[in-house]
Amino acid sequence: MYTFDELKSIFTDYIKQNHFDKEPWGLYDPVNYLMSLHGKRIRPVACLMTANIFEDNVSKALPIAYSIEMFHNFTLMHDDIMDDADLRRSNETVHVKYNVNTAILSGDLMMIMSYKHLIDCCDDLVLKDKILKLFTNTAIEVCEGQQYDMDFETDDNVSISKYLLMIKLKTAVLVAATFKAGAIMGGASDEDTDNLYKYGLNLGLAFQIQDDILDTYGDQSTFGKKIGGDIIQNKKTYLYLKALEIANKDTANNLRSLYNNNSISDEDKIREVKDVFNRLNVKDHADSLVAELTENAMDHFSALSVPKVKLEEIKKLAEYLLKRSL
Amino acid sequence: MYTFDELKSIFTDYIKQNHFDKEPWGLYDPVNYLMSLHGKRIRPVACLMTANIFEDNVSKALPIAYSIEMFHNFTLMHDDIMDDADLRRSNETVHVKYNVNTAILSGDLMMIMSYKHLIDCCDDLVLKDKILKLFTNTAIEVCEGQQYDMDFETDDNVSISKYLLMIKLKTAVLVAATFKAGAIMGGASDEDTDNLYKYGLNLGLAFQIQDDILDTYGDQSTFGKKIGGDIIQNKKTYLYLKALEIANKDTANNLRSLYNNNSISDEDKIREVKDVFNRLNVKDHADSLVAELTENAMDHFSALSVPKVKLEEIKKLAEYLLKRSL
Repeated sequence: MYTFDELKSIFTDYIKQNHFDKEPWGLYDPVNYLMSLHGKRIRPVACLMTANIFEDNVSKALPIAYSIEMFHNFTLMHDDIMDDADLRRSNETVHVKYNVNTAILSGDLMMIMSYKHLIDCCDDLVLKDKILKLFTNTAIEVCEGQQYDMDFETDDNVSISKYLLMIKLKTAVLVAATFKAGAIMGGASDEDTDNLYKYGLNLGLAFQIQDDILDTYGDQSTFGKKIGGDIIQNKKTYLYLKALEIANKDTANNLRSLYNNNSISDEDKIREVKDVFNRLNVKDHADSLVAELTENAMDHFSALSVPKVKLEEIKKLAEYLLKRSL
Repeated sequence: MYTFDELKSIFTDYIKQNHFDKEPWGLYDPVNYLMSLHGKRIRPVACLMTANIFEDNVSKALPIAYSIEMFHNFTLMHDDIMDDADLRRSNETVHVKYNVNTAILSGDLMMIMSYKHLIDCCDDLVLKDKILKLFTNTAIEVCEGQQYDMDFETDDNVSISKYLLMIKLKTAVLVAATFKAGAIMGGASDEDTDNLYKYGLNLGLAFQIQDDILDTYGDQSTFGKKIGGDIIQNKKTYLYLKALEIANKDTANNLRSLYNNNSISDEDKIREVKDVFNRLNVKDHADSLVAELTENAMDHFSALSVPKVKLEEIKKLAEYLLKRSL
């Protein structure tokens, strides 16, 4: 069994081998740029790690892991335009470093390239067909999730269930598909493959809720982003929506007007919103949901028909993802 | 054999059957909008028509024709953002009617949907694999063509050969792939399939050069676009590049300064540029090239191993494409 670091190193080499060295430069250079920025590579490593549970040689899963990372980076390239974001992994986003048209077109190319790596992955047409169907359905869901996320910005009636649907589509299904694709390439049984999908889905949801918690209650040194960023950007997070759900009318109105208040300082806004969250114990609600989702994930994990020793690395990865210090 | 109009009607029904009636509305409505604008449907009909040469029942080729039309419309949705175009088929472009973010994301969805229709097209995995490889390589080339086209806007040294490469990638390869995909779905031999690809490639190139000619020398009532549009927009067309290639230094400088002159009226600019073109006989050069490309196309067409009577409809389509009145 390979460790996380070993798989990351194998994957980093594969990215280097697939560096584009061709014309037109203006199309391919932005792809090389974004793909070479140092990311955590969680998705491709999770894909390889899952394949490795069932198969010692992970090389067959490499094009799939690469395709998933390429797809993820394509969504980042386009999402960063939509969100008007300047920085990605502490570097300029593509539409800032180059321009918007470049980020649109090079993003389109990345989407097609992610298909190319699936289509060229192997000669086993049945296996390939499975992967292509999984990937395509997932990609459609990710677009739906991004649309819901944009819709929510101007929607004052986002329910918790709609929010959970959005994070499922925008984030969790790709995590789930990553585990499933690794399992398929490793030759897992349908039952194991299905359990790994559901494991990934619950883990992805738990990760996203945990991310909401950390954004408000985390430790800046380990979280990597500025604490309180969601509150400053008026993001309708799980904490905010849960607070609105359980607050009385006055508190709910107070919270809404705090979010819409542009004259208050960032620090005061974070403190006052957090104060409302604390009075309503929304962090406890969020923690419970993370625990429930993690338990669901573990149920599917425990149902896998493989020796426990083979699951150690994936377990460590999941723990790392969920426990990024509070 | 079906006629053009019969196939267009079959295809229009298929588009209606595939109308999206699902949430999120903001993602799917723009796709329905663009797909339902009345276009000529040349590509999907050409695909069905080619399949029909080899197979009476064209239903197997419908998802492929749909995928190609979806892909073409995806490129239009994104190109219209990049070109800052307000109108498409006499209607508002998607980024004007909705907004830029919508046009980016719904375009991404269309790209994925065009793959979905290929992946769900049939149970014959060998056939599907062929189509997927053809489609993916073509899609990559189309992105490269669009990049070259954008690069040319700021490149003062575009050669005729670079221009021909650009229109090959941006336009002709998709026409070629359309014929080839129809042939594959109709069960054509490899030789016929290959000849139809080359037929489409030459036809696509001839069409694009003819389009350049018509933009300056055409009849507004039949061309459908404002005559002289390329000159007003300083487009580096075949006529312009050929003129620069054969002009002496003074005439070339005169042409360049006419293109860069913002104080001249549109009418004067068109008249003066056209005057340079006429003195250099660039229309004759362009006409010769169209004739040469058409001849190349016809060589591949004549080599097809099918009864001539089966090729009548395709021949009419090609004649229509090339002869749009001067």
